[in-house]
Amino acid sequence: MRAEIVGVGTELLLGQIANTNAQWMSERLAEIGVDVMHHQVVGDNLGRIVDAFRLALSRSDVVISTGGLGPTQDDITRDAIAEVLGVPLVRHPEIEEMLRARFRSFRREMPENNLLQADVPEGARYVLPERGTAPGLVCPAGDGRVLYAVAGVPSEMREMMLGTILPELHDRAGSAAIVSRVLRVTGLAESKVAELLGDLFVLTNPTVAYLASAGEVKVRLTAKAASTTGANALIDPVAREVEAILGAHVFTSSDEDLEQVVARALRGRGATLACAESLTGGGLAERLTAAEGASDYFRGSAVVYTADAKHDLLGVRRQTIDGPGVVSEECAREMAAGARRVFRSDVAVSLTGVAGPDPHDGKAPGEVWVALDAEGLATARHLHSPGDRATVVRWAEQAALDLVRRWAEGRLEA
Amino acid sequence: MRAEIVGVGTELLLGQIANTNAQWMSERLAEIGVDVMHHQVVGDNLGRIVDAFRLALSRSDVVISTGGLGPTQDDITRDAIAEVLGVPLVRHPEIEEMLRARFRSFRREMPENNLLQADVPEGARYVLPERGTAPGLVCPAGDGRVLYAVAGVPSEMREMMLGTILPELHDRAGSAAIVSRVLRVTGLAESKVAELLGDLFVLTNPTVAYLASAGEVKVRLTAKAASTTGANALIDPVAREVEAILGAHVFTSSDEDLEQVVARALRGRGATLACAESLTGGGLAERLTAAEGASDYFRGSAVVYTADAKHDLLGVRRQTIDGPGVVSEECAREMAAGARRVFRSDVAVSLTGVAGPDPHDGKAPGEVWVALDAEGLATARHLHSPGDRATVVRWAEQAALDLVRRWAEGRLEA
Repeated sequence: MRAEIVGVGTELLLGQIANTNAQWMSERLAEIGVDVMHHQVVGDNLGRIVDAFRLALSRSDVVISTGGLGPTQDDITRDAIAEVLGVPLVRHPEIEEMLRARFRSFRREMPENNLLQADVPEGARYVLPERGTAPGLVCPAGDGRVLYAVAGVPSEMREMMLGTILPELHDRAGSAAIVSRVLRVTGLAESKVAELLGDLFVLTNPTVAYLASAGEVKVRLTAKAASTTGANALIDPVAREVEAILGAHVFTSSDEDLEQVVARALRGRGATLACAESLTGGGLAERLTAAEGASDYFRGSAVVYTADAKHDLLGVRRQTIDGPGVVSEECAREMAAGARRVFRSDVAVSLTGVAGPDPHDGKAPGEVWVALDAEGLATARHLHSPGDRATVVRWAEQAALDLVRRWAEGRLEA
Repeated sequence: MRAEIVGVGTELLLGQIANTNAQWMSERLAEIGVDVMHHQVVGDNLGRIVDAFRLALSRSDVVISTGGLGPTQDDITRDAIAEVLGVPLVRHPEIEEMLRARFRSFRREMPENNLLQADVPEGARYVLPERGTAPGLVCPAGDGRVLYAVAGVPSEMREMMLGTILPELHDRAGSAAIVSRVLRVTGLAESKVAELLGDLFVLTNPTVAYLASAGEVKVRLTAKAASTTGANALIDPVAREVEAILGAHVFTSSDEDLEQVVARALRGRGATLACAESLTGGGLAERLTAAEGASDYFRGSAVVYTADAKHDLLGVRRQTIDGPGVVSEECAREMAAGARRVFRSDVAVSLTGVAGPDPHDGKAPGEVWVALDAEGLATARHLHSPGDRATVVRWAEQAALDLVRRWAEGRLEA
């Protein structure tokens, strides 16, 4: 079954809000095996809404529109549906009564405008809302096609989706299921991942796709089958092959963030972590504390942005004219050792480098050292990150988290 | 001039990401008076991308596509454009050289796949990127119509929009202008702002709108006129009235983030700042270092997540059974004084509190103390933040930044 989502509202075209409704709806529809093939967005203009609905019905079995069901003059989704289906709007006394009761319960007088919300295209069903005042509309459009219309307010849209539309479509779709599994990879460029997995790319069920962001590549396997179990059975062997090819670079196959994997691994080892950060400016600690319960494994971070602070808080040796400077392996190692000492943690990780855009201490933007210090083990890594300041910072964080993950998973050699 | 945005990517149709690119682009296009009439989203399927481009070109003067310009096999926007325009793809040695140089600078070998990014539809211009490796494409499509293609990675898309597409369209669009000015307010609830500004809300040019987020309310004034100057002239008196009513709660009228205002104020005073953070876990430092040049005013932050770390790094007194505990005015003041001492800064700000969802040290989620310490001035504030963990953290950061801003602007009494 092919579905299409039509967002109605000039505020979307002006960029005043993002179309998060389409994202949420698409995710829910994928879960029940409905293929969303298109999103459209149009403004509050009758002709263009009519055209959008006609196009959608010409290529999709199910069209779901959001927005334009309010009580004001620019809410014209009802009119557009009536025009597309060639039927009149009929006012429903039951809806009128619901509206009047709703306003009485708010102790407000109902503006007469609101009665527009009692108009329903002839031949359509309506669903009375619990939130808001806009009934959802279920409009048969011939040849088994259906046009649903729900309000644009996210909570009202969700009520109609969860209460009516998803159950109806689930019944119609039968038990077909689309399952996506995401394997997340760090330490390899997207093009390298694509090259290594090239042979898998020709698969059609599951399909293989890549999505890159700074310091990470997502490999998405998507399978379609009669059931979730069947779809997972199609994915399993391919996921194992991906993991065999990419090895320890795969940090999760359950779509966790790297910091969540690190948290789990530290908890599993019963170990505490401290950080020493320069170019990331607290971003590493911020990611490690975003989830509740971080105090189980996280002691703290010394964000030391100056050479003085590195010396005063962490005991990093004073830099000399012909010394290695603060962007160096030596400095990173001393920062990590210092953080482990002052925070009295089991392991510490440090970052020093140049976020850019300007060089620092004679080093180019993107040059980063990361070091780890633990009982009987001290190591460092050197990286050159591409990109702008935010990208360099993200790469550096990923490298530091990955080093801690490998340590906590027992994958680092002394 | 009518514009249309076409998002390419199956991840959008699966709901894995929201189409925030379309929002950002729409907002920027509105600012230069370009009417965005439609958004479309299609998956990584050649036929459907071709259909989407044909439809867009049939009704719009300018089509901007995002996504599908990467180096992997599912990146087929280039092929779709070539098919729509009926031209071959031509490999450009200059792009090839850029790609090879980019990889050399990362000290990585370039996978042969990446050469796909050197392919450009015949007759199109390309723009070499600063971020990423995907050139932007500028494809004349007859009758003055243009199809632009940019990468889907937001930072790469923004680079091409700001550097090439918006300036070109601004020249073409002539002088009609929609101008928005945002006054950002902290320390007042949205309903209080709305109440205080109630009389202005009826205005139609400029219009007045509110947008609330954790610890901040944006007041947006939007005017339409024949020119940017004309639109600004309509906004100026209303902006002055808003500032007169809300006073020091308005921290910017040029849409700067609070941390940018703090940075400017600290630079203006020639003062250095240090932080001591508990519940915000480095988030305060991360915001203060997000912009380049932060080392001008920022010394560092002690992220002290445990009572031991507060004592060991900052000299906070050991907590006793019947003492005030770590979520207290005393602790916040000692953290600020300790941070100023160890980082040798002119001013220090500290945060301690309960991010939640569970109580901590006998205090409820949302309870936060913020303190500031400077030569001859020490002060503290108590707040109760609503909301979940992320919201409490954001409120706390805003309160700390606002305290530093008021100090740096000379608005704090001893």
